[in-house]
Amino acid sequence: MSTEKFNAIGIESYENWQEPKAFSYTPQPQRPQDVDIEIEACGICGSDMHAIKGDWGNPYLPLAVGHEIIGKVVKVGSEVTRFKIGDRVGVGAQCDSCGKCHRCSHNVPNSCRKFVGTYQGVYPETGTPTQGGYADYVRVSQTFAFKIPDNLSSEIAAPLMCGGITGFRPLLTAGVKKGTRVGVVGIGGIGHMTILFAKAMGAEVTAISRSDSKKEIALQLGVDHYISTSEEGFAEKYADSLDVIVNTGSSFSENSIMGVSSLLDAFGQFIFITAPPIDEKIELAPFFLLANNYSVAGSALGTPADIEQMLQFAADHQIKPWVETIDINEENVKTAWSRMDKGDVKFRFVLTGYDKYFKKN
Amino acid sequence: MSTEKFNAIGIESYENWQEPKAFSYTPQPQRPQDVDIEIEACGICGSDMHAIKGDWGNPYLPLAVGHEIIGKVVKVGSEVTRFKIGDRVGVGAQCDSCGKCHRCSHNVPNSCRKFVGTYQGVYPETGTPTQGGYADYVRVSQTFAFKIPDNLSSEIAAPLMCGGITGFRPLLTAGVKKGTRVGVVGIGGIGHMTILFAKAMGAEVTAISRSDSKKEIALQLGVDHYISTSEEGFAEKYADSLDVIVNTGSSFSENSIMGVSSLLDAFGQFIFITAPPIDEKIELAPFFLLANNYSVAGSALGTPADIEQMLQFAADHQIKPWVETIDINEENVKTAWSRMDKGDVKFRFVLTGYDKYFKKN
Repeated sequence: MSTEKFNAIGIESYENWQEPKAFSYTPQPQRPQDVDIEIEACGICGSDMHAIKGDWGNPYLPLAVGHEIIGKVVKVGSEVTRFKIGDRVGVGAQCDSCGKCHRCSHNVPNSCRKFVGTYQGVYPETGTPTQGGYADYVRVSQTFAFKIPDNLSSEIAAPLMCGGITGFRPLLTAGVKKGTRVGVVGIGGIGHMTILFAKAMGAEVTAISRSDSKKEIALQLGVDHYISTSEEGFAEKYADSLDVIVNTGSSFSENSIMGVSSLLDAFGQFIFITAPPIDEKIELAPFFLLANNYSVAGSALGTPADIEQMLQFAADHQIKPWVETIDINEENVKTAWSRMDKGDVKFRFVLTGYDKYFKKN
Repeated sequence: MSTEKFNAIGIESYENWQEPKAFSYTPQPQRPQDVDIEIEACGICGSDMHAIKGDWGNPYLPLAVGHEIIGKVVKVGSEVTRFKIGDRVGVGAQCDSCGKCHRCSHNVPNSCRKFVGTYQGVYPETGTPTQGGYADYVRVSQTFAFKIPDNLSSEIAAPLMCGGITGFRPLLTAGVKKGTRVGVVGIGGIGHMTILFAKAMGAEVTAISRSDSKKEIALQLGVDHYISTSEEGFAEKYADSLDVIVNTGSSFSENSIMGVSSLLDAFGQFIFITAPPIDEKIELAPFFLLANNYSVAGSALGTPADIEQMLQFAADHQIKPWVETIDINEENVKTAWSRMDKGDVKFRFVLTGYDKYFKKN
């Protein structure tokens, strides 16, 4: 391996996101706290689609996405204490933080104001852009790498690193336990993982979608109830039926939030965990929140301790995201993105076959 | 006493809210669960000002406001079990609910969709409008009357019935305990009670206001810190300094909410407890909530159990709202409203002298 040149597949322009291309890049020089990871699997997250289309800004090109990474540690900096060479680890959507601020020093680096994304991030000290897991290697701070329990396969563990923790954390925030009535809006990549975690916690889970088209598959996932918001009078019919709603959908209109929120019982919590295009706003009526004693929260990723808890929970309860593996290469990434864009995957693509592709190049 | 004609002071029109007049009205006939209360004190709540100006709609006239009521039970319906004649009780902003819905049967009648306000409410069965505590008597369901602990005087207890519970409940919701960093926006009637409760819970309390003009009085109330939002760069200077913000102010602009919220640490909670004019909206950036793992909640009043807990807490900790008593009569109500409108009270008017006024009429 070369530690100074990493090989990746990514986009050369936002207009041509449909045409992924191979490229190589020079990572930021390894720091004492960094680990180099040889990648063996990477989930294709909904975030990847937002990023390659420029929904979240366009800081640099070329851009390799991918932040549901599993691989083996192949090199450790002099101050690395958490890992040794050969450890199988996972990396999620964050690869660094300032390490010094109030939030970092209180173990909440996922809300550090100098958050560095695993891709589409820029290291403040050097200005080096970050590149994601559609690549042979990735270099991250040890703080943002996590040991993968032995009984989770790499392709099952990969989607947990972003989608999994993103769906798990709001259930912690809301104090979900046996009998909590949890609604999950959107039955996609993150949504189906949220359902699996909520069920494993003993919650009574309701899937909420715009039509009946996902009813059958939601029942296969184990939900107890299903609500289609196209059913006339659904808000009155199912009023007070939920304690918590986790919104994994991408629509943030007032109607969608207030319509669905009205299913909540008094003191209910509406938590959204996916990000809309960067300039979108949500508008809420104060009286609606007041009269019902509702709260609306955003939840992004999780703390390192949350991620460790999530991985252990997944191992203990054998949480198994539904994955479709696909060997990494330009053609397959193109196909996977095209199918993702149409919602044609149940429920997560995971890139594998890294050896095959990168060793021959 | 006559149970069929109650005497009150209120408004005859919204335009002339500055001219309170005496009137008498026929209350809804007493139901088996109702108690009649002879009033001896009533706080003048900020809600009263909104109501008399028509900010919250204008369902009927004349209108007597007042929902921080303390008095003696003088008549009980055949099914009343909670009280006997002579008990000293308090009534807050709610006098009835449907009693049958999911929320009522789960002890959250304050979020009943058929909530009946102590004033400006209408009983759904009879269409009878409700009238508040600027009156000789009030008739309410026993569920919404509460025994006042002996060591709280009536003028001290009165403001607790609406302002007190409104400030106390969000502290419960947020799990405030020793050392929690609580910000209180707005140093007025409800704000000062919120500060007193938060301090008694052991919180580290920061008062937040638009200028330095309330600094001295906030320190007298016992706050640990004071932030003026007119100080340049306040958001950066005091970033991460709060776990919870209770907004008791009346401004709901995006700037005010997002500017002040940015003082919250990660996973912070912004809870607003006062209602703006009915058609006002709040607009929030999802990325802001996500990146910081923030929540925004509305909190209205409290459950009956919360109110009992609040009264006992106030008795145990000798919570003493700052009150200015004023004898009830048309002229004094006019004066008090005029001063309330200018924010000229530290911090709560309480109407007293009911005997003197109503016995002579």
